[in-house]
Amino acid sequence: DNPLTIIAGPCQLESLDHALMIATAMKEACDKFGAQYVFKASYDKANRTSLSGKRGLGIDEGLAIMETVRDRLGVPTLTDIHTPEQCAVAAKAVDIIQIPAFLCRQTDLLLAAGETGAVVNIKKGQFLAPWDMANVVKKVESTGNERLLLTERGASFGYNTLVADMRSLPTMMQTGYPVVMDATHSVQQPGGLGGASGGQREFAPVMARAAVSLGIASVFIETHEDPDNAPSDGPNMIHLSEMPKLIETLMAFDKLAKNDPIRL
Amino acid sequence: DNPLTIIAGPCQLESLDHALMIATAMKEACDKFGAQYVFKASYDKANRTSLSGKRGLGIDEGLAIMETVRDRLGVPTLTDIHTPEQCAVAAKAVDIIQIPAFLCRQTDLLLAAGETGAVVNIKKGQFLAPWDMANVVKKVESTGNERLLLTERGASFGYNTLVADMRSLPTMMQTGYPVVMDATHSVQQPGGLGGASGGQREFAPVMARAAVSLGIASVFIETHEDPDNAPSDGPNMIHLSEMPKLIETLMAFDKLAKNDPIRL
Amino acid sequence: DNPLTIIAGPCQLESLDHALMIATAMKEACDKFGAQYVFKASYDKANRTSLSGKRGLGIDEGLAIMETVRDRLGVPTLTDIHTPEQCAVAAKAVDIIQIPAFLCRQTDLLLAAGETGAVVNIKKGQFLAPWDMANVVKKVESTGNERLLLTERGASFGYNTLVADMRSLPTMMQTGYPVVMDATHSVQQPGGLGGASGGQREFAPVMARAAVSLGIASVFIETHEDPDNAPSDGPNMIHLSEMPKLIETLMAFDKLAKNDPIRL
Amino acid sequence: DNPLTIIAGPCQLESLDHALMIATAMKEACDKFGAQYVFKASYDKANRTSLSGKRGLGIDEGLAIMETVRDRLGVPTLTDIHTPEQCAVAAKAVDIIQIPAFLCRQTDLLLAAGETGAVVNIKKGQFLAPWDMANVVKKVESTGNERLLLTERGASFGYNTLVADMRSLPTMMQTGYPVVMDATHSVQQPGGLGGASGGQREFAPVMARAAVSLGIASVFIETHEDPDNAPSDGPNMIHLSEMPKLIETLMAFDKLAKNDPIRL
Repeated sequence: DNPLTIIAGPCQLESLDHALMIATAMKEACDKFGAQYVFKASYDKANRTSLSGKRGLGIDEGLAIMETVRDRLGVPTLTDIHTPEQCAVAAKAVDIIQIPAFLCRQTDLLLAAGETGAVVNIKKGQFLAPWDMANVVKKVESTGNERLLLTERGASFGYNTLVADMRSLPTMMQTGYPVVMDATHSVQQPGGLGGASGGQREFAPVMARAAVSLGIASVFIETHEDPDNAPSDGPNMIHLSEMPKLIETLMAFDKLAKNDPIRL
Repeated sequence: DNPLTIIAGPCQLESLDHALMIATAMKEACDKFGAQYVFKASYDKANRTSLSGKRGLGIDEGLAIMETVRDRLGVPTLTDIHTPEQCAVAAKAVDIIQIPAFLCRQTDLLLAAGETGAVVNIKKGQFLAPWDMANVVKKVESTGNERLLLTERGASFGYNTLVADMRSLPTMMQTGYPVVMDATHSVQQPGGLGGASGGQREFAPVMARAAVSLGIASVFIETHEDPDNAPSDGPNMIHLSEMPKLIETLMAFDKLAKNDPIRL
Repeated sequence: DNPLTIIAGPCQLESLDHALMIATAMKEACDKFGAQYVFKASYDKANRTSLSGKRGLGIDEGLAIMETVRDRLGVPTLTDIHTPEQCAVAAKAVDIIQIPAFLCRQTDLLLAAGETGAVVNIKKGQFLAPWDMANVVKKVESTGNERLLLTERGASFGYNTLVADMRSLPTMMQTGYPVVMDATHSVQQPGGLGGASGGQREFAPVMARAAVSLGIASVFIETHEDPDNAPSDGPNMIHLSEMPKLIETLMAFDKLAKNDPIRL
Repeated sequence: DNPLTIIAGPCQLESLDHALMIATAMKEACDKFGAQYVFKASYDKANRTSLSGKRGLGIDEGLAIMETVRDRLGVPTLTDIHTPEQCAVAAKAVDIIQIPAFLCRQTDLLLAAGETGAVVNIKKGQFLAPWDMANVVKKVESTGNERLLLTERGASFGYNTLVADMRSLPTMMQTGYPVVMDATHSVQQPGGLGGASGGQREFAPVMARAAVSLGIASVFIETHEDPDNAPSDGPNMIHLSEMPKLIETLMAFDKLAKNDPIRL
């Protein structure tokens, strides 16, 4: 948990070169400011708002890229999985497999993920209270796997809007597992553009900073060198060139927070 | 759409005898008051709050029961599916396959469901605005299947609470597809009992009546002869003995509503 | 409570002639279809979104018009009050004084309203759970006044949006007091136009019909002969010419609902 | 705005000695850690959940105590006002008059507050979007008074629950006015105890810390030497003995945040 881990990368994989470019830039920035780094990318966007949204490279090509990034740069990697069958396959190629928020109550997926023995990052559903993650955690723990991360990514707040409740972070910390703030998706506006989700990129650093001040283990941020032309989640990804300054800021807050932990 | 269709049955299949008992009682009540009837039951509860919640009979035994109910009683049947692979299997055994609310954005599941050619009932996610169902509908329509039902089952409203927005019903009607009110799950209190979902059974008839007055096609209600001892969703299922009176009431409102349709 | 009472009129008083025109048209429509009628109008809009929104005629001219409407047409009248001092003054000129939703927890206002002995209509705050109206009711009852009405007008649902929870109506009925559905303000979009509140006029009849089907005592609807040019709440007022048909519809549902009451 | 101002005191005035005791302890703690300090207390709780909740000492005795605290300790003071008439009276006795959240749209109250020339702290309504505070601000500015503070105290989130949206803070900062985080009331559970509001005292430091990390001007915290026996808001007040450590922590985060401001 200490120092802060930055889980960052593009929303979806575009090519090996693109993945390496972003992972290299991020690793350099994290090394410079003393953060741990995990490369994050998706091989399949399985729940796009609209059918016309790009799905991604697919599992075979995608996982091959994830492995190459890990091997060449020596960084741990994370990707999200969508069916029980994908768990074992993905767990061979990446270090952390991630349960999407919409799927955080799907028992079979949680069990299959746990059985891989890989680290499992569970995103809290937009429909779930933070204390209800205790039940989700028990499903994975029943497999004997206690290598879990729990991620806040916003709760439904009326239509097409999410709100990130800061109480969620210390509440989930009480499970004993590391807690992650997803600064990108908690400022998403689901379906807010009609055929796609909108977002409020400018608030991602706000969410990250507030959360880090509470002593969380990790921040999840999607980043791109040209967010406005990215194939998905452009409205809420942070420009890659802004990441070093953001990491520097977050590390200062992380140091302070870890020296003075919150006790509920 | 006319007259009202009652989609009703136990939350989960318990045995063939139990299914036949409930379907027989419901068919009789629907026949008596002029309602159409669809038998509903689940073979697998794939997203229970807690791992210790009963999952159900499984797909093989469950679908066999569904087929027997259909064959013996001559009633159409509905069950929910959870993976793309289950779609084709279930579509052989039942008339309507249902997309669970948490899964209503999973593109592969929607496509697989559409490709069966069966009627597909899509439950609107607790995290989705009613107008965003238009994008969900397009995913299924892309398969050439235009036999759809759209179901309101409540939207997230703070923690452990849902609210059913009546505006959702005429909004979804504008897609041109029949709209269903799930009177049972819209009064659920997700996670409200800690290790299980709570519910407010007394409000299910309230939701059903308000929705039927707007001229919807169908009401979805779970029922049991002993709800307090049912394996799931007991707190919000209606006692089987109360169904005939409820159907009589709903049919009176349905007749009035269908003669005087709402025009947005 | 029986038959349904229509509380209707313009959002704000514009002139005596205008008030008489609307009250006359509404009385005629209510008489024709057997509804009870209460003329509603405000002399002061004390909480407009923006300072530039029109406030109204003021208490002296406003109450004089309210008295004239009552005397000439023989209809009971309702207006909203904003300070303890206004209660006694308004209670001389109208039959029902109304506590605005934002003010429903202001103890002095509730006590002053109760002490007039007039009927008091309390709008449930957008921030209040329906069961919490029991505490509000007790404040007024402490004055010895038990002539109360309780009105649902929507609950905050994210930003700039309200949702009307149908469970609120039978919940408030359990106090024993008549319950009113405010079909106009429950479809308001507070602040939704930047410097003014937006609204969804097309949903007001939806809310009214759903609520009447539950057997409520009264529907509150604002109406205008030219809503788009009205000084306030234009986006959610119903065109006066559409009221007779709406009342006819509501009376049919009211008759059915009152013959078959909901029992919680 | 720099350094952080702590606005703190008991929820309601109990006696002169009690006020002096708390103000003295708070001033000492703020001086020690370099914070600015404003003594806060209410002379009247005008909107208690229940009529049986204690109202307070009243305006005459209450304001006399506020003046004595200011004179003896040399600390600026804040109290909340509830009617236009109280504004001028209170403005003579305290430095900052506060508009309660429920009343933040009451035009006459805002104008009367502005006309005193005193600093006016406006609490954002639980029903208001942060960007809608721009309209509220204009009402006060129309009096020529530009000495404003804007306070976040939570938004309605389902029933009996509030959520504090961190985006609200930088959004309100864009008005150019100092922004305050009310760490006490944003963790209130309105009506959550039936006849009184509940609260989650343990989360008040969480809210304060997250907000201070965003570079806000001030934190508002209610404190008491015996919260569980305080006449109001006991469940969310912080124990007086815990305030020095909390202030020390907040000042460290404040220094970091003010050196590295958030830019939207």
